[in-house]
Amino acid sequence: MARFFVAATNIFGGVACLGAKEAAHLRALRIRRGEHFTVCDGQGTDYICRLRHIHDEGAEAEIVSAEPSRGEPSVDVTVFAAFSKGDKLETTVQKSVELGASSIVVFPAARCVSRPSAASMITKTARLQKISEEAAKQSHRGKVPGVTVSPSFEHAVKAAAACDLALFLYENEKEGDIRSILRSKTGIRTVAIMAGPEGGFEPHEADLAERHGMRKTGLGPRILRCETAPLAALAAVMYETDNLK
Amino acid sequence: MARFFVAATNIFGGVACLGAKEAAHLRALRIRRGEHFTVCDGQGTDYICRLRHIHDEGAEAEIVSAEPSRGEPSVDVTVFAAFSKGDKLETTVQKSVELGASSIVVFPAARCVSRPSAASMITKTARLQKISEEAAKQSHRGKVPGVTVSPSFEHAVKAAAACDLALFLYENEKEGDIRSILRSKTGIRTVAIMAGPEGGFEPHEADLAERHGMRKTGLGPRILRCETAPLAALAAVMYETDNLK
Repeated sequence: MARFFVAATNIFGGVACLGAKEAAHLRALRIRRGEHFTVCDGQGTDYICRLRHIHDEGAEAEIVSAEPSRGEPSVDVTVFAAFSKGDKLETTVQKSVELGASSIVVFPAARCVSRPSAASMITKTARLQKISEEAAKQSHRGKVPGVTVSPSFEHAVKAAAACDLALFLYENEKEGDIRSILRSKTGIRTVAIMAGPEGGFEPHEADLAERHGMRKTGLGPRILRCETAPLAALAAVMYETDNLK
Repeated sequence: MARFFVAATNIFGGVACLGAKEAAHLRALRIRRGEHFTVCDGQGTDYICRLRHIHDEGAEAEIVSAEPSRGEPSVDVTVFAAFSKGDKLETTVQKSVELGASSIVVFPAARCVSRPSAASMITKTARLQKISEEAAKQSHRGKVPGVTVSPSFEHAVKAAAACDLALFLYENEKEGDIRSILRSKTGIRTVAIMAGPEGGFEPHEADLAERHGMRKTGLGPRILRCETAPLAALAAVMYETDNLK
């Protein structure tokens, strides 16, 4: 069934209101009055709707039923990704959303080659948020994960450490592997996955993360690129928590 | 320690011979006579070498010791990826190599938008092979995974089905999820992961794969892009077989 995202404020009194863009899309899909489609409020609820009116400026649909979006995993994972060069952050955001991350936080780290100014970060975050939105639509998520910027490495670590399980991906880590760590924890509701920039984390950053309660986590002997590591870890978390079914 | 790939034929009589490119790289790294570095034969063995001679055309190093490359996983995974548009195949190859795939096979499928001619496929495969080589170097693999082209979907299915476990990633699959399938098998040595093009597989393709013994496998309710699905499945296989430590 065709699926649209609308702001939650556009759903009230048993009716969903869609804008001009969605109306054009409904027309392109040849959906007519009386026919059904899904409207998602971006906050985890899917509404089965019946088209009532459609015109150039928008459309109005009657809500037939509501259910929690099937695309939302049972675990709340935030991916913390260090600033990186080129389009790597875009890849990280797009794939993280597809794989079920709840939010993405970008942060500065010691070895970041890319250190965007505050002004360019505003433009960049808007672009990353748009990528998140498109990925959420395409992958049938029920929520659009937010993309935010953390002002400092320590700030990001503190936010990550507040999760039930906070994984600090560290290629020099020989002891704590992701499987042992995930299997030693039960009933995890919130997870943080923190990945470094191109050159990895500095030892003093790993120490700081550990002092705040994060778990240094290896992902095996193969050196993963900065955009590959968080995706492998996210897939592992979703696999272990039975969210790949 | 610095690490170089050379052809296995360049290693004989206790000596490793390196070409002009590697010699220039050794100089750039300021490695001098008597100093150590690693040479990998691309077939799973790492040689600790001591530099003996270096000149513009190449370098010669004495082999001090040999050991199996740490970067090779215990399970042999072939990723079968359908032709896709743009640079998606490049992403699939690069990330598959990082995550430990042993080889990559590209194949045609019913919904492939991209159907390269034989001539352009030769150029494309050469490019994908180069990407595999670079990813193998960067991720400290012990082998350079081969990239080959399968002439038909059925040919690819037959090759995949010859593995101990052959996963056919199918988004319409509601019963067989990857975790149940992986956990129901023990002692797996070879795995095939087959992923479709942008529009997914046709039902008749899924039927054919099943008739040949492949396991239809879902990856959860989130619709993954054609380049994301095989990577999530590969990460899951590596996780379950304890190759992420």
